[in-house]
Amino acid sequence: MADAIRVLSMEAVHKARSGHQGMPMGMADVATVLWTRFLKYDASKPDWADRDRFVLSAGHGSMLLYSLLHLTGFKAVTRQQLEDFRQWGSNTPGHPEYGHTPGVECTTGPLGQGLATAVGMAMAERSLAARYGSDLVDHRTWVIAGDGCLMEGVSHEAISIAGRLKLNRLTVLFDDNNVTIDGVATIAETGDQLARFKAAGWAVKAVDGHNHGQIAAAMRWAVKQDRPTLIACKTRISKGAGPKEADPHSHGYTLFDEEIAVARQAMGWTAEPFTVPEDIEKAWRAAGRKGARHRKAWEARVKADPKGADLTRAMKGDLPKNAFDALDAYVAKIAENPTANATRTQSGAALAELTPAIPEMIGGSADLTGSNNTFVKGMLPFDLPDYAGRYVHYGVREFGMAAAMNGMALHGGVIPYSGTFLVFSDYSRPAIRLGALMGIRVIHVMTHDSIGLGEDGPTHQPVEHVASLRAMPGLLVFRPADAIEAAECWKAALQERAMPSVMCLSRQKTGVARHSGGDLSAKGAYEVSPAKGEAQVTLFASGSEVAIALSAQLLLQADGIDTRVVSTPCWELFDRQTPAAQAAVIGKASVRVAVEAGVRMGWEKFIGQDGVFVGMSSFGASAPYERLYKEFGITPEAVAAAARKALK
Amino acid sequence: MADAIRVLSMEAVHKARSGHQGMPMGMADVATVLWTRFLKYDASKPDWADRDRFVLSAGHGSMLLYSLLHLTGFKAVTRQQLEDFRQWGSNTPGHPEYGHTPGVECTTGPLGQGLATAVGMAMAERSLAARYGSDLVDHRTWVIAGDGCLMEGVSHEAISIAGRLKLNRLTVLFDDNNVTIDGVATIAETGDQLARFKAAGWAVKAVDGHNHGQIAAAMRWAVKQDRPTLIACKTRISKGAGPKEADPHSHGYTLFDEEIAVARQAMGWTAEPFTVPEDIEKAWRAAGRKGARHRKAWEARVKADPKGADLTRAMKGDLPKNAFDALDAYVAKIAENPTANATRTQSGAALAELTPAIPEMIGGSADLTGSNNTFVKGMLPFDLPDYAGRYVHYGVREFGMAAAMNGMALHGGVIPYSGTFLVFSDYSRPAIRLGALMGIRVIHVMTHDSIGLGEDGPTHQPVEHVASLRAMPGLLVFRPADAIEAAECWKAALQERAMPSVMCLSRQKTGVARHSGGDLSAKGAYEVSPAKGEAQVTLFASGSEVAIALSAQLLLQADGIDTRVVSTPCWELFDRQTPAAQAAVIGKASVRVAVEAGVRMGWEKFIGQDGVFVGMSSFGASAPYERLYKEFGITPEAVAAAARKALK
Repeated sequence: MADAIRVLSMEAVHKARSGHQGMPMGMADVATVLWTRFLKYDASKPDWADRDRFVLSAGHGSMLLYSLLHLTGFKAVTRQQLEDFRQWGSNTPGHPEYGHTPGVECTTGPLGQGLATAVGMAMAERSLAARYGSDLVDHRTWVIAGDGCLMEGVSHEAISIAGRLKLNRLTVLFDDNNVTIDGVATIAETGDQLARFKAAGWAVKAVDGHNHGQIAAAMRWAVKQDRPTLIACKTRISKGAGPKEADPHSHGYTLFDEEIAVARQAMGWTAEPFTVPEDIEKAWRAAGRKGARHRKAWEARVKADPKGADLTRAMKGDLPKNAFDALDAYVAKIAENPTANATRTQSGAALAELTPAIPEMIGGSADLTGSNNTFVKGMLPFDLPDYAGRYVHYGVREFGMAAAMNGMALHGGVIPYSGTFLVFSDYSRPAIRLGALMGIRVIHVMTHDSIGLGEDGPTHQPVEHVASLRAMPGLLVFRPADAIEAAECWKAALQERAMPSVMCLSRQKTGVARHSGGDLSAKGAYEVSPAKGEAQVTLFASGSEVAIALSAQLLLQADGIDTRVVSTPCWELFDRQTPAAQAAVIGKASVRVAVEAGVRMGWEKFIGQDGVFVGMSSFGASAPYERLYKEFGITPEAVAAAARKALK
Repeated sequence: MADAIRVLSMEAVHKARSGHQGMPMGMADVATVLWTRFLKYDASKPDWADRDRFVLSAGHGSMLLYSLLHLTGFKAVTRQQLEDFRQWGSNTPGHPEYGHTPGVECTTGPLGQGLATAVGMAMAERSLAARYGSDLVDHRTWVIAGDGCLMEGVSHEAISIAGRLKLNRLTVLFDDNNVTIDGVATIAETGDQLARFKAAGWAVKAVDGHNHGQIAAAMRWAVKQDRPTLIACKTRISKGAGPKEADPHSHGYTLFDEEIAVARQAMGWTAEPFTVPEDIEKAWRAAGRKGARHRKAWEARVKADPKGADLTRAMKGDLPKNAFDALDAYVAKIAENPTANATRTQSGAALAELTPAIPEMIGGSADLTGSNNTFVKGMLPFDLPDYAGRYVHYGVREFGMAAAMNGMALHGGVIPYSGTFLVFSDYSRPAIRLGALMGIRVIHVMTHDSIGLGEDGPTHQPVEHVASLRAMPGLLVFRPADAIEAAECWKAALQERAMPSVMCLSRQKTGVARHSGGDLSAKGAYEVSPAKGEAQVTLFASGSEVAIALSAQLLLQADGIDTRVVSTPCWELFDRQTPAAQAAVIGKASVRVAVEAGVRMGWEKFIGQDGVFVGMSSFGASAPYERLYKEFGITPEAVAAAARKALK
């Protein structure tokens, strides 16, 4: 049966003249044991909520996964799809893509991230088991990872989190073939992986990755441990590929016709290309059907269980009814007497209304809880013994945290949010991107969003980060100006099912921009303060600089210059408005000025090429924030002066 | 003597009402033993080439370093500077900043990176020792790292590289106080650090971090090991801070007057604020002077050694005379008969001319050597036994690689370059940023720079990366169009002493843009193909899309539409041109079209708000690249059609 994976992988890579058969062939035995004897799934129902999750962290070995999906009978991966491997529009792209191919649990390829994402899946499983009981939620997460995955730094963050939380439903199958692209792995790696995982609190075991008995015994052992498990599978890369077996250069090599012929002969494989002998196909299909019985029994339990309907709702990604009632009431209340504060504090206040109403929200922070205002009073830590808590202490692990959040969202049933400083979005950026690519609801709270953080200085002051996040497709970047916008941005982020969001929030106190509700932030940009008469000047700003723009407006109006102010809390939502609505927001004032304590890049959207920008063009500095705004010329006076100059 | 550090740290944080005294007080004993008995330095000569390097990876504890620099007599840190801690314009910013305060070896604060940067320093030392002999190069690198540093993923990459390369001149002093911002570290970390480092090939030892005898014994042990060393120093955070000693909340806490009074009394410290009793000051100053003798002896050896002058040149950052002779000759030669190829290949050809001429260039790749074309035939691996090789196998560790390159550049005497895929600039971005902030010459080769990489699909296709790198201050982003531009861009990157560079290079074959030399790329943007008459249309493009623009020009000219083409290989160098020169390049054609296989953000610089952009607005897909360019509408025909439409 494993040879079926090997042959299909060889053939698909050969046909595409591109791709990797080294890992699929090397790990075919391990995958066969897993998918025929241990993995809980039903090929006819890829989205069964209580299935085991399988993550191919070494995503370049995608033909392993496509072979498995095809052989076990997942509809999305037909023989034609295998023949169209890596072609336009196929279900079999170069790396597995979530949302594109049913049966693929996670987009993988950027190494290390599959493993880190799987940690989040295992966390979500424990959280849901605590909420809905083990009758309804009781499954495992299995990962295949290679040398490259374990070299990446994010693997350290991931295994430390998993070890600390004793996620015993998580098993990593390490393809221990001592090969990476540049040659034998030892040219760059001599670490002892077993000792390393053990140091992180994992139970570890090594097996011959071609010995089915040993593999099965190790899997039986793994499911009984009280902590996460590593099974190091000693394998020969491209196992079965005749002359290329165990050759480091076969990692991403396309076999020649003759080489494939030799390999097929050695396996005694005579079937036509892309076909599988009937008996082998039958056995694989039976494996793919085995879980149906369990799935049906589970469906009956869900039906019978009083919590079953709520689990179904949460897994679908629907919010609870009345999810925003408390938030809307809070907005109405603060609108009566709005007060200035830091937007991180105002975000925290919004969370205090949301988290009780939306029990699937799971918060956390990368060791900056007090600074990020992500913790809501009364939350308990997500931890042993029962994982019922909803606040995760991720440690100083921004990337691991973001990847784990992706895993939670992929698993479903939970809505993860958590925090760090905006400058450290650089650390978590690869996972933010993967979340955007996968189209999943993950909310990244990023506080201390400009030079306004003050004394910590330029290492901690984002300057280019808002722009560089806005450059990323598929991501909502929010930068609210005050309490009402903060609440509205949270609502918009939660209502968006198929995109991650970043909340950029100030450390320092800002002004009051709004005195009424109305969900205006959902428009992305809107006139927050009209001109007295016909506007000569429009000031555009986001976040903490809206208050500066409003003060500048007063200065200009005092000079008799009619000025309006537009707040731009989310450019991506603005892009969704009709051209007419956009034009109305941009307006017809002859002078347009943008104010943001970051770089100019992208602001032409609002101010055109000839518009005036007041912001940063260099890194910041260490000093109290009031001084920094003054030294870098981001003040109401500077904005008013810039507008006056442009009017002349 | 250690109490002097404690009191100064308490007082500076107290005066600034901001900062961290927890770590400086906890590690005061370890730092005192290091700086009075082991560290090789001369306070009067902070840039002595053969000094030991000291890196405070836990940069938030900056008052530890400032106290040491002040006490030992570094001129940059006077008493007044300590009083101005974290104030505008002071030499004592919130986190230590390289280039800002002489004596600070490395900008730190973003956790984990100091350690990873130190690995590069230790590598540079070994490389220079091989080149110039241990008479001239013979020093160590010492790091202080905290729990946070060791949680960050980059620490894994760093210690793996150091363990693999057996960098025995590197010692990490781990502030093992079991405290992070959110509380006791065990809320997020239960790993065994000693076992972990041992698994990575380090020699490890634990000591009582307040016992000077134990500390000194461990340092004596460390310098004798044949591999990198970890000394875990069990400490009490805020040691000496009276009621706040060992309190997790004292990490970033500002002590009250009464608390400081209690602490001073317990230490028997009666000196005025920011002053040190004479005897203690004398002892510290003596420690700061101790190295002068060794420094002078070394200077004499440099003078006497035939290689001494070259070491001095390399450490100053001067290139060898005639560094570009071979490259210029190569450009002249290929200009006679230019051929199309992938720009990554053309970059490799330029490197083949440069690396023999510039022996301080040290190359490498994060396990993509064959794809990045960073390896030049004849290079040997940088490795044991003598480290004379100039090619580093970094493994799949993009972030650790970039940070190590920063460390090499900071150390001086070497010019590091190395490669990965452009999409993985997200992994190394935090280190690219720190290099930009520090202003150091590091060259990041980033190949596979668009959807042009084809089958690997959207996980591997950069779309927003060129824009988001251009958004970063202090960084040169090059995207050459052909062989001549590739050579010119390398020359410009090497000539820039105080900025890192990113080389964005295509996987796929491009066209020929240029038929003569002239270092035009150094202008950042220039007319690569003039219009026949007065231009009605200007096409702007970079990299692989210049060929597309040139083909579109032919289509438009055939229609009688006079069209010119501008190549924009480096926007940041364009920004340095005079306004008149910039205006001439932008030209007066009524229609301006930009073509780049990435997002539009930033292109308004060339095309204005109303300009036409042909590029990407979403993630890519998996397919052969020709198909992708067609499907995403980035073709000569599409460019010509867009220009025609705009003309109407």
